[in-house]
Amino acid sequence: MMRTVPKNVIEKLKAAAGPNGWLDDTSDLSSYLTEQRRLFTGSSPLILRPDNVDAVSEILAICHEARVPVVPQGGNTGLVGGGIPYEHGGEVVLNTSRLNKIRALDPQNFTITAEAGCVLADIQRAASDSGRFFPLSLGAEGSCQIGGNLSTNAGGTAVLRYGNMRELTLGLEVVLADGTIWDDLTGLRKNNTGYDLKHLFIGGEGTLGVITAAVLKLFPTPKSHGTALIAIGEIANAVDLLGLARSECGDAVTGFEYMPGLGIDLALKHIPDARNPLSEVSRHTVLLELSSSASDWPIGRALEALLSKALENGFVLDAAIAQNESQRKSFWRLREAIPEAQRVAGASIKHDVSVPVSAVPAFIESASAAVVEALPGIVPIPFGHVGDGNIHFNLMQPAGMERDLFLKEWPRFNRIVHDIVDSLGGSISAEHGIGRIKRDELRRYAAPTKLDLIRKVKRTLDPHGILNPGKLI
Amino acid sequence: MMRTVPKNVIEKLKAAAGPNGWLDDTSDLSSYLTEQRRLFTGSSPLILRPDNVDAVSEILAICHEARVPVVPQGGNTGLVGGGIPYEHGGEVVLNTSRLNKIRALDPQNFTITAEAGCVLADIQRAASDSGRFFPLSLGAEGSCQIGGNLSTNAGGTAVLRYGNMRELTLGLEVVLADGTIWDDLTGLRKNNTGYDLKHLFIGGEGTLGVITAAVLKLFPTPKSHGTALIAIGEIANAVDLLGLARSECGDAVTGFEYMPGLGIDLALKHIPDARNPLSEVSRHTVLLELSSSASDWPIGRALEALLSKALENGFVLDAAIAQNESQRKSFWRLREAIPEAQRVAGASIKHDVSVPVSAVPAFIESASAAVVEALPGIVPIPFGHVGDGNIHFNLMQPAGMERDLFLKEWPRFNRIVHDIVDSLGGSISAEHGIGRIKRDELRRYAAPTKLDLIRKVKRTLDPHGILNPGKLI
Repeated sequence: MMRTVPKNVIEKLKAAAGPNGWLDDTSDLSSYLTEQRRLFTGSSPLILRPDNVDAVSEILAICHEARVPVVPQGGNTGLVGGGIPYEHGGEVVLNTSRLNKIRALDPQNFTITAEAGCVLADIQRAASDSGRFFPLSLGAEGSCQIGGNLSTNAGGTAVLRYGNMRELTLGLEVVLADGTIWDDLTGLRKNNTGYDLKHLFIGGEGTLGVITAAVLKLFPTPKSHGTALIAIGEIANAVDLLGLARSECGDAVTGFEYMPGLGIDLALKHIPDARNPLSEVSRHTVLLELSSSASDWPIGRALEALLSKALENGFVLDAAIAQNESQRKSFWRLREAIPEAQRVAGASIKHDVSVPVSAVPAFIESASAAVVEALPGIVPIPFGHVGDGNIHFNLMQPAGMERDLFLKEWPRFNRIVHDIVDSLGGSISAEHGIGRIKRDELRRYAAPTKLDLIRKVKRTLDPHGILNPGKLI
Repeated sequence: MMRTVPKNVIEKLKAAAGPNGWLDDTSDLSSYLTEQRRLFTGSSPLILRPDNVDAVSEILAICHEARVPVVPQGGNTGLVGGGIPYEHGGEVVLNTSRLNKIRALDPQNFTITAEAGCVLADIQRAASDSGRFFPLSLGAEGSCQIGGNLSTNAGGTAVLRYGNMRELTLGLEVVLADGTIWDDLTGLRKNNTGYDLKHLFIGGEGTLGVITAAVLKLFPTPKSHGTALIAIGEIANAVDLLGLARSECGDAVTGFEYMPGLGIDLALKHIPDARNPLSEVSRHTVLLELSSSASDWPIGRALEALLSKALENGFVLDAAIAQNESQRKSFWRLREAIPEAQRVAGASIKHDVSVPVSAVPAFIESASAAVVEALPGIVPIPFGHVGDGNIHFNLMQPAGMERDLFLKEWPRFNRIVHDIVDSLGGSISAEHGIGRIKRDELRRYAAPTKLDLIRKVKRTLDPHGILNPGKLI
């Protein structure tokens, strides 16, 4: 059933957002209403684009009063439908793109204060310009916004060393459901003054408040990298190698990605600039990166020592070490080419899951066997951040099977894969969040006590249910 | 006014806690009712000491039903009155000492699962026995319990590199106010399945639930240390030196403590085994420690290079480098001797505050001037974790002033010191928490929006107000 937003509310909202702060020409809204993977296309009569926190406050106060639902939206690079309105047309979109000022940068305190609409790459650049380093790094960094990274507790490739978005955040500015502004933009490393409520909003997917700014941790800039592509005999060796690497090189281990041979084959076939530096494609490959911000740590020697110890222990079959920055980039390019190649090669059923690192081999082996048994010809391409136990368990369509027919099987494969994840103490959403796509799965796998707590907290902070309704819970 | 706990409730609670699970001989309860600094002595008819989570659940269900307040208590090493019942006698104490099993240790996943009553030093030892490292370290580690560390989000000397207790925690088991057990003992590095509710209980000071177990992060064991005592000309040089050290040595900077000359004088005078390795006592001294878990990082050379660069830049006057483990211990002993010496030397008014690292010099200078102006003869001894912006701003009584008369001035000095902290964007409780001692201060300095959120969350999770009432909020 279609719904609407009352005309007088729309007028009030336009006034609150200011002259350049809204769009309502329905012929021109598609970039705000369609998610990049095209799994979700919603409808809305009004996109609000305020450029200051007071306007956000006024907008939420109006919506709270009028019981009009609001969908907060950042760079619209999400993968779970969290930032797209529903189809009924009764929601307004609150896009943060114009809230894009870097408010402060304190190199001595190793902090940056950025508004929600700042693009991740711009924050990385600002940090770098001041001799500091902001470590969050992910595929969409050129267009995703920090507010979205915060609301989804983004992960990426540097979590092993630096943590998720949650661990990178010291303070927030949040507009609550009724429009109240909560200014908690603290740059403190230690602060035990009552409940640490920022953690409700980080990863809250816009259902408890709208994050408008944040104080983020900066780090010393890594000065040297040691990067290797490593062929291993079985997946269990990836976990052995990780343990050895951390024992031998400690915090220097900043990247540890797993790639299956089939994924590399696919990348070499479909992505023109993908290269394999090893003499052949092994069944299992690891991308290992050491980084150091110390001036004089002989990182190349450390990497060689580690690899020869790993060879001795039988964890490693073959390895290539990047000899320069362009080889290093080429190794990472191969890793990033895997999901790209999958998109080119056909339809994929995807799972963004995590298990304890020690359970990664058991997970990949049993889930791969189970899906092949359920649909002969299906091709599991599990890859990702083994260092965090986070596997993107993607399934390619069997040769010759019709695309849509295959994608209709998604729920059946969710059940198979998520049941195994659950039995291993894992998570059905490691880094992408719940949004719209995994609500039913969350309800199925989360402890009833947790669901009850989530609902109670939601009702407490958003009593009229206007903040991103039907997302997450 | 005195209160009581109904007899029938006491009998039910004893049955729930089991044969060795309670104490009610009032002649023998003082260790449970008096805080170590003797600022608080409470009263209670019953100390409960359950040894399993089901008993904790039953106890809370009974208290919830009967509206009997419960004071959760760990090793009773707190400093803010959070684990001690009020004087009225109407509360029962729930002591976690017998919940002291290490349930699991997974070296490949770098995790340990420990019950709330495990002593911190025992967890450090268990990690070390399995070739791993648990970094939380603080003065009370031989008797404090991890449940208390969790409930107060403990900090200590390794926060600069490893974070607070909050950052060291992956999963929790919590008993909610009505006795419901929430099992969220996950060992996952990435898990975005709904609000991350554990952060309400971590640092919640037992007012929202009783933490009964946790999954904690382990780390590679540091293999080498480089430790220096460094005389500097002014406090601002401490911040300069920290920035230089992090730029040059990155993550290897694991300790960065500030000590004033007067504090070192006091330690040398009152603590027999305190030694100053420098030729004279400087007005300002820094203890800097580098650590590395990498096998072959030349840490001594790195420390020397850093110090000579700092000398060139004029940040450093003189420095002594520990040549062996016993010298290293002796440097740390000097740091720890400062608060001990203060206890011997007389009464102190203490402030556990933090400011942005960049504001540490301004804070120490202006707060020192302000307190001396307010009471000539008072001796400010600010020391602590500059690397986290966390200063223990302690004030020694003027020579000749009567102890109790001096301590009565505490509220006046709170106002002076906390006003300056607040004006610098700091925190009135960096690591000790709010408990009973800082409730009024929290109400004064916290944003009304934050207080309102805290109260709403409290009411939602503990509708009858039985969990540690009158603490934190």
